Amino acid sequence: MAEKWVYLFDDVDQAEKKAGSWEGVRALLGGKGANLADMTRIGVPVPPGFTVTTEACNAFLAHDKTLPDGLWDQVLEAIKAVEKKTGKVFGDAKNPLLVSSRSGAKFSMPGMMDTVLNLGMNDKSVEGMIELTGDARFVYDSYRRLVQMFGSVVLEITDTAFEEPMDEYKEERGLKLDTELEAEDWKTITEMFKKVIKKHKGFEFPQDPNEQLRLSIEAVFGSWFGKRAVDYRNAAGISHDLGTGVNIMTMVFGNMGDDSGTGVAFTRDPATGERVLYGDYLLNAQGEDVVAGIRNTKPIAELEKDLPEAYKTFVDICGKLEEHYKEMQDVEFTIERGKFWMLQTRDGKRTANAAMRIAIDFVDEGMISKEEAVLRITPDQVDALLHPQYDHQALQSAREEGKRFASGVNASPGAAVGRVYFDADTAETKAKEEGQDVIMVRPFTKPDDVHGMLASKGILTSEGGATSHAAVVARQFGIPCIVGASEIKLDLKKRNFTANDITVKEGDWISVDGTTGEVFLGQLPTTMPSFEEQEELLTLLTWADEITAGDDVREGPKGFPTKGLQVWANADYPADARRARDYGAQGIGLCRTEHMFFEQERLPIVQRMILADSSEDRTKELDKLLPFQRSDFDGLFEAMTGLPVIVRLIDPPLHEFLPELVELVEEIATMRAKGETKGLKEKEELLVSVQSLHESNPMMGLRGVRLSIVMPEIVEMQVRAIFEAAADVKLRGFDPHPEVMIPLTGHINELTAIQPRLEEIASDVMEKKGVEFEYKFGTMIEIPRAALTAEEIASVAEFFSYGTNDLTQMTFGYSRDDAERNFLLTYVEQGILPVNPFQSIDGDGVGRLMEMCTAEGRKARPELEVGICGEHGGDPDSIKLCHKYGLNYVSCSPFRVPVARLAAAHAALGK
Amino acid sequence: MAEKWVYLFDDVDQAEKKAGSWEGVRALLGGKGANLADMTRIGVPVPPGFTVTTEACNAFLAHDKTLPDGLWDQVLEAIKAVEKKTGKVFGDAKNPLLVSSRSGAKFSMPGMMDTVLNLGMNDKSVEGMIELTGDARFVYDSYRRLVQMFGSVVLEITDTAFEEPMDEYKEERGLKLDTELEAEDWKTITEMFKKVIKKHKGFEFPQDPNEQLRLSIEAVFGSWFGKRAVDYRNAAGISHDLGTGVNIMTMVFGNMGDDSGTGVAFTRDPATGERVLYGDYLLNAQGEDVVAGIRNTKPIAELEKDLPEAYKTFVDICGKLEEHYKEMQDVEFTIERGKFWMLQTRDGKRTANAAMRIAIDFVDEGMISKEEAVLRITPDQVDALLHPQYDHQALQSAREEGKRFASGVNASPGAAVGRVYFDADTAETKAKEEGQDVIMVRPFTKPDDVHGMLASKGILTSEGGATSHAAVVARQFGIPCIVGASEIKLDLKKRNFTANDITVKEGDWISVDGTTGEVFLGQLPTTMPSFEEQEELLTLLTWADEITAGDDVREGPKGFPTKGLQVWANADYPADARRARDYGAQGIGLCRTEHMFFEQERLPIVQRMILADSSEDRTKELDKLLPFQRSDFDGLFEAMTGLPVIVRLIDPPLHEFLPELVELVEEIATMRAKGETKGLKEKEELLVSVQSLHESNPMMGLRGVRLSIVMPEIVEMQVRAIFEAAADVKLRGFDPHPEVMIPLTGHINELTAIQPRLEEIASDVMEKKGVEFEYKFGTMIEIPRAALTAEEIASVAEFFSYGTNDLTQMTFGYSRDDAERNFLLTYVEQGILPVNPFQSIDGDGVGRLMEMCTAEGRKARPELEVGICGEHGGDPDSIKLCHKYGLNYVSCSPFRVPVARLAAAHAALGK
Repeated sequence: MAEKWVYLFDDVDQAEKKAGSWEGVRALLGGKGANLADMTRIGVPVPPGFTVTTEACNAFLAHDKTLPDGLWDQVLEAIKAVEKKTGKVFGDAKNPLLVSSRSGAKFSMPGMMDTVLNLGMNDKSVEGMIELTGDARFVYDSYRRLVQMFGSVVLEITDTAFEEPMDEYKEERGLKLDTELEAEDWKTITEMFKKVIKKHKGFEFPQDPNEQLRLSIEAVFGSWFGKRAVDYRNAAGISHDLGTGVNIMTMVFGNMGDDSGTGVAFTRDPATGERVLYGDYLLNAQGEDVVAGIRNTKPIAELEKDLPEAYKTFVDICGKLEEHYKEMQDVEFTIERGKFWMLQTRDGKRTANAAMRIAIDFVDEGMISKEEAVLRITPDQVDALLHPQYDHQALQSAREEGKRFASGVNASPGAAVGRVYFDADTAETKAKEEGQDVIMVRPFTKPDDVHGMLASKGILTSEGGATSHAAVVARQFGIPCIVGASEIKLDLKKRNFTANDITVKEGDWISVDGTTGEVFLGQLPTTMPSFEEQEELLTLLTWADEITAGDDVREGPKGFPTKGLQVWANADYPADARRARDYGAQGIGLCRTEHMFFEQERLPIVQRMILADSSEDRTKELDKLLPFQRSDFDGLFEAMTGLPVIVRLIDPPLHEFLPELVELVEEIATMRAKGETKGLKEKEELLVSVQSLHESNPMMGLRGVRLSIVMPEIVEMQVRAIFEAAADVKLRGFDPHPEVMIPLTGHINELTAIQPRLEEIASDVMEKKGVEFEYKFGTMIEIPRAALTAEEIASVAEFFSYGTNDLTQMTFGYSRDDAERNFLLTYVEQGILPVNPFQSIDGDGVGRLMEMCTAEGRKARPELEVGICGEHGGDPDSIKLCHKYGLNYVSCSPFRVPVARLAAAHAALGK
Repeated sequence: MAEKWVYLFDDVDQAEKKAGSWEGVRALLGGKGANLADMTRIGVPVPPGFTVTTEACNAFLAHDKTLPDGLWDQVLEAIKAVEKKTGKVFGDAKNPLLVSSRSGAKFSMPGMMDTVLNLGMNDKSVEGMIELTGDARFVYDSYRRLVQMFGSVVLEITDTAFEEPMDEYKEERGLKLDTELEAEDWKTITEMFKKVIKKHKGFEFPQDPNEQLRLSIEAVFGSWFGKRAVDYRNAAGISHDLGTGVNIMTMVFGNMGDDSGTGVAFTRDPATGERVLYGDYLLNAQGEDVVAGIRNTKPIAELEKDLPEAYKTFVDICGKLEEHYKEMQDVEFTIERGKFWMLQTRDGKRTANAAMRIAIDFVDEGMISKEEAVLRITPDQVDALLHPQYDHQALQSAREEGKRFASGVNASPGAAVGRVYFDADTAETKAKEEGQDVIMVRPFTKPDDVHGMLASKGILTSEGGATSHAAVVARQFGIPCIVGASEIKLDLKKRNFTANDITVKEGDWISVDGTTGEVFLGQLPTTMPSFEEQEELLTLLTWADEITAGDDVREGPKGFPTKGLQVWANADYPADARRARDYGAQGIGLCRTEHMFFEQERLPIVQRMILADSSEDRTKELDKLLPFQRSDFDGLFEAMTGLPVIVRLIDPPLHEFLPELVELVEEIATMRAKGETKGLKEKEELLVSVQSLHESNPMMGLRGVRLSIVMPEIVEMQVRAIFEAAADVKLRGFDPHPEVMIPLTGHINELTAIQPRLEEIASDVMEKKGVEFEYKFGTMIEIPRAALTAEEIASVAEFFSYGTNDLTQMTFGYSRDDAERNFLLTYVEQGILPVNPFQSIDGDGVGRLMEMCTAEGRKARPELEVGICGEHGGDPDSIKLCHKYGLNYVSCSPFRVPVARLAAAHAALGK
């Protein structure tokens, strides 16, 4: 017996039996066909029809584009069954059955073949139909549509080949709108279109309805490997093996009078999620007319007045469909002479807000579980709710109007509108003193630009990648940021920049979309949600936390019992820490102490400390810094009372605190050449220091624990400040949990050389202050060698925190400062790398190290606290891996905490 | 029963039974004591005596410096046994037994307690001894020595406390030499010395011989934790748990007339290895006199005339000892009134040449196997034979005369004497045009300094580490080189440098010792061995190769059957390849193609190629380079006919071929400030290119395969050149085996993106030339991620070659250019790292990656050829690891090939 290639919409049970699951039915019949059959099964009125399977498509493509054995017979049989249901006959001259043909794969995808309507008409049946309907204009218009669609869609003749002669015809007669054309006009035009087919293809438009049908089916199958479809599948990562189905459905007409109509609708408001029908319809019209916008459509609510019976049916059907699919639906319908027909249903697209509301309402309505609700929200949707966004419509218009004049890496999401300034000082002055909204534009940023960045609404750089300084700081502080916008040519002397022939001067307005990476001229309107007021989001994240904790109880770090994967935050200042806590962070995974060194009143002290000739002079300067650091930590510990706070000791190379070498050399050369002596000697002396601290590859240089071993005074001061602050906070009645993190460890001996002397300071401070509290000493794992020798290192370190930025940098050998600009984005574009490993953890390489390291570290110390504090901590795919590796927490910027909470729940649910 | 703490020299069998092995006996009795007992056992005349064990020492130290139970009784018992043998009585007034006391641990080490002679004398026995010998002067002199030695060695009174009064005494009486002093003088001096002891210690010199003995033994034990001994053990990596033994031996006197004498000798010539007794003796003298050099010693051969009987005994004993120890011996002897006594024997130190000759002679004499012979030569000794060396004596004198004025990292071994020049061009001109011997002195070197380096006899830099550019190039070409000599302050404008207050001007002579890292003023004499003429070395290395191949037959890469670990060489030019082959290399593991780009006539073409705006312009320049590259490869393939040649495609970042950014900025700033316009525009344009290619961390930047993917034209040219050259060579009747190596791979997709198009070029060339030959495409493994995903990568790569320089750099996160200068040497000094990982592979981290990678790579491709081409390929410890990991070959600079051959044999023997 031949295989079954064709399923009537009634045959859905049979299809499900064969496919084994609903997912299988969708694969076999395509999404559209499966849902048509499914609606039929649950008693929703669907015009009779059938689906030719995706397997038939694959068989057709595998055998040199010939229909597989048995297929055509099954089609003819299915047509017979439809004839029986409708009482019409396919190809009949008096009362012909007309059908439409539509493609439909498992996933909806652009580039597949379009719809062909009215299959089954020919010169003879036209006469019969006119007789039957008494409406010659309607019939000839329908026939004209068939010939035109068949020609362009099935026979692939260009649209203009049909449009040109029709336009000429109308012009000759002074006709403008299609509605002005009469039956005779359409008849003439139909004949013209038949000639077009004959001219282009060398054969006549097929009068045999069966041939029309067969050619349509073959054309759908053939379009599976059309260029646009292939490109789309490659880009979206959809398998080329799926194939497409073909849906053949009886035509119903919404243009048969005022008791007819057609429309599209959502079962809930896709913008807000409100539980109301949302959509448009037209009376006495066809689907095309609704979409084309020739006539003004009516809101769906008015249908209740126009056709109360049909409206009631529709409301019932929508309820039924939501009940059945447990999802908000996007539907198409037609009413033919009072009779209601559903032509399509599918899950509806919606805004983040709507998604949230709908998921929660569905739980309230008892339709889905909390787990399902949490899974229905994507991390991107949560993220969108936390940043100012451009108005969707305005964004679209701006693009169409050509206001988008540059683009770059979407480094930190959100919308920012402001005036352009080109240096940190000006940016800060304009913002603070004049209250301007500022967009800071730089080639790249450095630590001493931070004050300007913090004062800005948005940041735009022409260099750097997703983990460049600008990107990291911007994400940290939730500032929208685009980096590596290489089209931009900056002229810092002329104070302007140019991109694609548009020049923007200092003070001009631009709008930066950190979510998409686009830069626009002028001011685009934005909307800004607030976290605390978003009740639905708060509800959903509470559910997420419950799911994450769930039954997956792991023994957590001592003093902080952990269930599942916690979400901590990276925060340097008390205000960040409070925000993080508000957003649901259960600890601070990374407080970077060096940011504290860059503040204006401290930097000169830091520079004198670095340039000190002796340990004594250095200590003298450090003594001045100690109170600053202590007060920084004080606020942090107070804000995080009861929760762990990991403070990382100084990490960057010292030259970052000094002027830039190239600039200094240029300055000195200029002074020398001009014979200027004032201040020259000081600059020359400074140059000697800068040169001696200059490194060819500073990322792999004298920083982190290496610096602490060569120059221990700095970290000794820092540890003293940490413990003095914690002691003070404790004495004020709070509950501090400091954890001291040593960065850049590569060898256990680095820890054994420095940790004991720091622990001694800790004990000393506690003894002097007469107070005790829990604390830990641990290390970053960011050097591959540390990961490879984790068992040794865990014998000394009480916690591990993956610095995945550096770990990725070293494991790949990709300079974070340069790679994205030079080759990394090309790699991602060309598919050499599946994703940018600085945005999402590379499981095979970096992840493998993390997995080994976690397991081996716990061998030496079963209660080892393991987390991640790199930029990846807020990335949902990376969070999945962290869950898989058994980490205790991920730590990310405060603004990502809600996103990470959701992602952690998804990971816990195995999604 | 108390433990046994004391062993008579006769008790060696008992000691061996207890200790379980000869190694155990050496640990128990110390090396000196063990050999004394051993000599006694085989019938060599040794003065009767005993050893107090190292265990006794440890027990003494563990229990608050009290002698363990039973020890003293056992000492007294042993003394009784010695009295019985000698017929003398310890402490007897008439015929006293005198003994010496000497320390002796398992390994000989400086800093332990010195010898005390004549224990057992006191005021009473002096009289008896004078009566017995009739030689009052001898007796009082002996007594004086005891008091002096006991005071300084046992009681730790400073030497000057004894020397000053004696000098005064002699001065008062106008006496100069000790030989001018009479019996009465020595008697007086002895009394003076006793007073010194009383004054310093508050007690009298002990008259009780037992107390003398006990205090001596305790003093030896106590000296185990003396500062010098502890420091030495720390430096030499000797365990502090070993403890020292004490050897008590009957005194024999070589100063009892002309039938007495004393001497030291080697059983073979320690300079040449010749089979002759080699040493000195004095008649009627004590050991001290031989060493002190007061009297002229006689060569040992003359003893045959002076004391034929004793000489014959000595020759027999030497034969017996060599037979017994299978080693050349370093012995001490004394002849007392015609009777021959051996006081010590141990394995003798020797020059590299002697070691070689002795090992081979021992094999010829049937005493040891070839394996043992090979194991007796150290890699350092082989290395010493391949480089010009300073005359040992001259070196010593130069140090003493203060001519050593700076030191640095011993980057490339050998002696170089020349005149100082400060830039590559001058160095080259002076060397080539004036025939001068040149030492090039630079802060550091860059690829465009290579022509000057190649023309120099030696290289000295003030910056950089063991794998800096200067070091790598110098080793590659066997040029002695010191890097990172940070004491040196270079003044390139004044054309001089200063170190430790010594200023060296351009043109001055200096001598550079690349073996030790020392820099000397002036010209030190050198000697230069030649490889081909060193028959012993050739013999030994042939044996080494046989051992390496041995039974350890691994299936090698197809076409090149491998047994054991082969040694290949890194060579860029045909001359290097020929040298490598002469030195025994079995392939070329690394030909760096970019050196070829730096040659003078090519560099401008390379620069134009880099700056080209279009792919066409670039290809035009590359077409000009192709013939150069082809001819480079042609010579290489011809020289290596029948053997594999791995050619690495272009690796460094492009900016290395352009001027340096900082210099260019300085130049332009100066021109601008001075208003100079000529050539300014060109320089400004160049600056734009240099800036656009500038990277913050170039080591992790756009280089290697990344460059090939972004700009494939260069490697396409290179592969064409490789295969055209191989084809030409094949057509001339040679047998080329090219292997194309893609550098810096981190992801399999990098290979799949580039390798197929290169393989296509290979096929294309072979087809056009109408010739076929074997070839491979493979990759460097130098990025940790490549090692972590080896199984995937081996599915495409046909061979792996570890680039351990970069792999170490990335695994540790240590910038090769900076780390040694900034912290790495400090790390090694402080013991944070056991060795510099750029010199010797870090087994725990980098090695672990290599081991995983090799095993997983072979899972995917069992015949995978795996080797190492980093600087570590010539390091013996690293070679051991490579053997352990199952590599097919190590590749090192041609000059290291013999060293590596020996080290490979050692590895094969498990040593």
